[in-house]
Amino acid sequence: MTLSLFSDEHYMREALKQARYALEEDEIPIGAVVVLERQIIARAHNQTEQLRDVTAHAEMLALTAAANHVGNKYLADCTLYVTIEPCVMCAGASFWAQVRRVVYGAAEEKRGFRRYGNLLHPRTELVSGILGAECGALMSEFFARKRK
Amino acid sequence: MTLSLFSDEHYMREALKQARYALEEDEIPIGAVVVLERQIIARAHNQTEQLRDVTAHAEMLALTAAANHVGNKYLADCTLYVTIEPCVMCAGASFWAQVRRVVYGAAEEKRGFRRYGNLLHPRTELVSGILGAECGALMSEFFARKRK
Repeated sequence: MTLSLFSDEHYMREALKQARYALEEDEIPIGAVVVLERQIIARAHNQTEQLRDVTAHAEMLALTAAANHVGNKYLADCTLYVTIEPCVMCAGASFWAQVRRVVYGAAEEKRGFRRYGNLLHPRTELVSGILGAECGALMSEFFARKRK
Repeated sequence: MTLSLFSDEHYMREALKQARYALEEDEIPIGAVVVLERQIIARAHNQTEQLRDVTAHAEMLALTAAANHVGNKYLADCTLYVTIEPCVMCAGASFWAQVRRVVYGAAEEKRGFRRYGNLLHPRTELVSGILGAECGALMSEFFARKRK
């Protein structure tokens, strides 16, 4: 099996690296990257504890960084990769940015946006389950550690 | 009629001042303040154009500023006043912050969160219609100007 350099799996592995940074910092381990024309233009991990700010989800930080990079608040040619299904807040941000694709790893049944219907922009394509087991395993590891 | 110093109307007037700053800057005129123990601890207006960032809604900026002020990401004793019904993103942020009360002025039927059900935290009280006509009039003024 070959792993294409520009596959969804490739970029999700980069998001997973970000999630591992979060885990090392004792943050809920979620990572995100934004890709434009095959290039990663933003990388972020959840920093809600460090920044003491509920809005500092990986996706929010990545979308803001991507907008800074391109000098435009609209990210209509960008793909957002995130290890876990986005929450309502982050889905809403991707709506406003008109992101072309949202690709996530593992589902989040309790706090994910999908239980509320399709909150994404009509032009946004949604892909799920990319490296889902690995993405979900980081979350299980984090919460198992917290319960101890 | 007397206007109590600590009424919802009083704080909504402060949010309206913020909305007017947005209008002066040619931003969609929405303003917000966060109140803790009768004191305004954060004031913000929509800055999505100036910051080129879709996440820079008045509520998001106000919640982040309030968290910085109290040194805690949870705002469980705070009230968020905002001139217009929050969008999905901002409702989601108020959920994570566990804001005690969300008070808005005018409804926003197209982009407001309420059409998706109750996205607020179970402990958040929702109040609407405070100075709704004035809050809505600023939006009408902005969009009428844009259509010209």
